[in-house]
Amino acid sequence: MNEFELIAHLAPSLPVNESTIVGVGDDCAVLDPGLPGQFLLFKTDAVVEGIHFSKTDDPLKVGHKALARALSDIAAMGGTPTHALVTLALPQVFDVHRVQGVYAGITALASQHHVGIVGGETTTNPERVLISIALLGTVPKSACVRRSGAQPGDAIFVTGELGGSLAGRHLEFEPRLAEGRWLAGHFQIHSMIDVSDGIAGDLPHLLKPGQLGAELLASAIPVSRVARLNSRAGSTAKPAMFAALTDGEDFELLFTLASGEAVPLLDAWKAKFSGLRLSCIGRITAEQGIRIRDASGVRTLKDHGYVHFQKS
Amino acid sequence: MNEFELIAHLAPSLPVNESTIVGVGDDCAVLDPGLPGQFLLFKTDAVVEGIHFSKTDDPLKVGHKALARALSDIAAMGGTPTHALVTLALPQVFDVHRVQGVYAGITALASQHHVGIVGGETTTNPERVLISIALLGTVPKSACVRRSGAQPGDAIFVTGELGGSLAGRHLEFEPRLAEGRWLAGHFQIHSMIDVSDGIAGDLPHLLKPGQLGAELLASAIPVSRVARLNSRAGSTAKPAMFAALTDGEDFELLFTLASGEAVPLLDAWKAKFSGLRLSCIGRITAEQGIRIRDASGVRTLKDHGYVHFQKS
Repeated sequence: MNEFELIAHLAPSLPVNESTIVGVGDDCAVLDPGLPGQFLLFKTDAVVEGIHFSKTDDPLKVGHKALARALSDIAAMGGTPTHALVTLALPQVFDVHRVQGVYAGITALASQHHVGIVGGETTTNPERVLISIALLGTVPKSACVRRSGAQPGDAIFVTGELGGSLAGRHLEFEPRLAEGRWLAGHFQIHSMIDVSDGIAGDLPHLLKPGQLGAELLASAIPVSRVARLNSRAGSTAKPAMFAALTDGEDFELLFTLASGEAVPLLDAWKAKFSGLRLSCIGRITAEQGIRIRDASGVRTLKDHGYVHFQKS
Repeated sequence: MNEFELIAHLAPSLPVNESTIVGVGDDCAVLDPGLPGQFLLFKTDAVVEGIHFSKTDDPLKVGHKALARALSDIAAMGGTPTHALVTLALPQVFDVHRVQGVYAGITALASQHHVGIVGGETTTNPERVLISIALLGTVPKSACVRRSGAQPGDAIFVTGELGGSLAGRHLEFEPRLAEGRWLAGHFQIHSMIDVSDGIAGDLPHLLKPGQLGAELLASAIPVSRVARLNSRAGSTAKPAMFAALTDGEDFELLFTLASGEAVPLLDAWKAKFSGLRLSCIGRITAEQGIRIRDASGVRTLKDHGYVHFQKS
């Protein structure tokens, strides 16, 4: 049993209560404690040294990433983050300047988004640094976008460019908060998620597992420049398209809406967010599975992105 | 710089916002997002294998402890817990049954207090298990008890019995939620905290550091039976009174209120919570420092409980 299977196994037995709108299984928990017109969003996200960042990474960027990942989940529901708690687990002997740097990175990003850092704790993890962020936010009840609302025929969109994030962008990315709120507030977004595990890993979450599928157009996938450069690095390099679909850590927004709204959305987007690419990459299908169409035909994307791509 | 100094150093630079009532430095953060008549309480607490529990402890009890610690902080503000997220950091190879046991312990306690487990995440911590709980709760605005309201002359009370918790009780304790709510709802409690680091460690938090002091009556300290038994274990054993003051992990409620309310409180308590001891252990003084009075006179309790006690 791996950790995904474990969670799937445990989830049905977890208690919920009458103020729980969405529990396990979306970008954030959605709660209704009685705020007029609004839901609360509640999320935790942890990064671990040696896994999500390295000992030698700039601590400012490590702190930035720790908070940005959680903010990205609030963005994916159309919400606004409000308050965070920081759990910092440290070896008994730690570098004070490094810890101050991590906090400075968290604080700078929090201030930028008007998020209060209202506490947390420091505890001991002898072998490595672990940073966990607990985050609260709000979202208008009428504009809370879940993962589960995709419909056959929906156009599939993604913000930004994908692939190669581990070369550096994963420590510097900007969570798409303004974009997520604008999308949820101005269009009937059917479903949305932030891309942390690549389109191959995250698009399946929008397909109501076992009920829907998707057809992607290879030429429309926004492959990042870094992924293209990496793909030319040698005979063992990852093809750029494969990197874009599977690298993960992009933290862009992946969403669907009725195909009739696709062109008005693209027009309005260009006027509002001229500096950020928005790509219509395919459509939701009633037929299950994820298929990719290119010049040579249609191929099926296997679990977690395994597919025979030529180098592009 | 130790971790306490680190937090004290970082706290002033953390951003807050207009809906932050209490940030760093109390049992929970207190937030006012606009709930009619209520504040939100927000708290995280982590337990780490080899530090807060051992590899061989019953996983049900480990899960119980992980959630109970956070619930205890909600209790110490007079609040009611509502929703929790569970962050579980595990070695890459883990014992599925043990993880299921931890979740079962969390779930049983959550259900008992009508707390929804609304998500969380599983991540990798290669060397040891770490469990972090993020908890939300609510408290009536009129009955939110902080650490900071003690006044000279206040009577100091503590629930239950203290000392020797590491012999077993630290894995099984019941968070004093009903008691905390009842206290906050029926009496003008000036200040309250849950005792996690012993009276010696936690009473100073009620003394508005540098402004107030306390005088304790040694004979009134409710020393647990386990602490008494342990003190007879040999010539190197910890004196029972010292154990009661410094062992920690008791998770009882320590609070103050006007001395005129002390007797009415004790009477009402006996009628309401007949199974749980409540002890008036001393009073708040305008003079700084913590002093302990016994048959031989008055002695000063040093930082973190260091004081020359005879074995009792």
